[in-house]
Amino acid sequence: MVAPALIALDWGTTNLRAYLVGSGGEVIAREERPQGIMQVAKADFAGALDEALKAWMPLPPGLPVIACGMIGSRQGWREAPYAACPAGAADVARGMIAVEWRDGHQVLLIPGISCRDGHGVPDVIRGEETQIFGAVTGDGGLFLLPGTHSKWVAVEKGRITSFATFMTGEVFGVLRQHSILGRTMQAGEIDEGGFRRGVAAAAKGSGALLHGLFGARTLNLFGELAEREGAGYLSGLLIGTELLEAPRVVGISGKPSSIGLIGQPQLCRSYALAAAELGYATFEAAPDAALHGIWRLASARGLVKEAA
Amino acid sequence: MVAPALIALDWGTTNLRAYLVGSGGEVIAREERPQGIMQVAKADFAGALDEALKAWMPLPPGLPVIACGMIGSRQGWREAPYAACPAGAADVARGMIAVEWRDGHQVLLIPGISCRDGHGVPDVIRGEETQIFGAVTGDGGLFLLPGTHSKWVAVEKGRITSFATFMTGEVFGVLRQHSILGRTMQAGEIDEGGFRRGVAAAAKGSGALLHGLFGARTLNLFGELAEREGAGYLSGLLIGTELLEAPRVVGISGKPSSIGLIGQPQLCRSYALAAAELGYATFEAAPDAALHGIWRLASARGLVKEAA
Repeated sequence: MVAPALIALDWGTTNLRAYLVGSGGEVIAREERPQGIMQVAKADFAGALDEALKAWMPLPPGLPVIACGMIGSRQGWREAPYAACPAGAADVARGMIAVEWRDGHQVLLIPGISCRDGHGVPDVIRGEETQIFGAVTGDGGLFLLPGTHSKWVAVEKGRITSFATFMTGEVFGVLRQHSILGRTMQAGEIDEGGFRRGVAAAAKGSGALLHGLFGARTLNLFGELAEREGAGYLSGLLIGTELLEAPRVVGISGKPSSIGLIGQPQLCRSYALAAAELGYATFEAAPDAALHGIWRLASARGLVKEAA
Repeated sequence: MVAPALIALDWGTTNLRAYLVGSGGEVIAREERPQGIMQVAKADFAGALDEALKAWMPLPPGLPVIACGMIGSRQGWREAPYAACPAGAADVARGMIAVEWRDGHQVLLIPGISCRDGHGVPDVIRGEETQIFGAVTGDGGLFLLPGTHSKWVAVEKGRITSFATFMTGEVFGVLRQHSILGRTMQAGEIDEGGFRRGVAAAAKGSGALLHGLFGARTLNLFGELAEREGAGYLSGLLIGTELLEAPRVVGISGKPSSIGLIGQPQLCRSYALAAAELGYATFEAAPDAALHGIWRLASARGLVKEAA
């Protein structure tokens, strides 16, 4: 077996992904468990890690272990205080904090980043900063990490300069499940035709989302939107609205030239489809972005040597 | 007892309000029951009306009975097809349909109004048109009927020329009850300080509601929004956003000169407070607007003589 140089942990709310990494940054082995921080009994994170990594034991002395994601939040192992935006890899690497694990091994927890908008309202990312550092090629760009709460992140000269959270996924979920809109929506898969109609409605609409949502009801009432199309329409309307508003919120005027998508493939496909309808170009950022980001941050902290 | 000239029914989803009206439009007697169309067992609307009005029996022969609200919807007694916007009192009066009740008495059901926005998405009101005809003084104005789904209605020369529905109340309810935002919100009354902060956030914000909502979470996370203030902040953010967007949606550019509020007093007070924060003038439209509207529509149909 190649000698390992690093253990990288992508430890979020629902899953733990662990990578045993060689000195060239290559993955020697990987483990994935449904042991997100909300699933770990009695918050025994050390025990959960023992269990997840038992195949790799015993660990060579001095092997660095670095974790990104919600494990470094107040609800996780310990809170790694947010680095302030703008922040580059060096700033984030400097903010790592150590917790004791076992046999003299520590786990370094990567901090998230916080920012304030022009009116003092804070926003935060935690885990996404690491994915961004793993995905960014060249100097910068605009990245979108879709999810329950999607994150838009602008990068300039290798530093995260601005970001914003959109609650699109969660708003879709609660409206579908708990509002009157859900009553005329078939359960199951998102219908692509309905989705495209929703995106088009967002593009043509007035931006008044609280009004536009009602269209999902009235179109059905008038026999012009099938129950099969309903959830797709709602999803398209919400995602379309997000795509139209978010670039401005992170400081980009006009259409963004290109958006890098990072995340769960099916969700990225929906965003790519909506973006195409709106005339935005998107590209798929590298897979295993978190792993690559941890490697970069380990290198910034001098724990591994980045490949030439 | 004064001879009755009309029975007016304001029959919505949750309540039935009945008025026995004299020949000058004065209220002789009133009844209110929690017998909205969703509460009437077996959809026996004739029976529910027998029961609600038994104190007024026997009715004089030929006494007109007119009902506005959801009783004239597909889920009600019978559907009175929507009149098309723009529509005045005469257009709506013409669209009433009759259902048989008892002893030769009919109930006339007032139609709602439908419209299409510039992109073909329909919108509807049912019941609110009658309140508007009862509340409008002079030629016209802009009216707001807050509720689960609030309705904005523009009136010109006595005709309803434009309207739009905002799902503000329902979105507030589902987010408070079912989203992550509700987890850091104290139950119970809306805190006025939190409400004002939410309105201010809407005013200063970028209009990107799916992003702005997340501020209710991050402000709490940073210790800058108490749990006591949380629901107020969310309500203020949503109502403020609605107030900022709605005038434009119904065709009014710039700040509206004055908004007439019609509805449940506490909700109207919240909207008036938010409107004042945004520099809009509001006034309270007449109480019993539905009653007055039914009287006007009865007059337009020649069933009663309007007072000189």
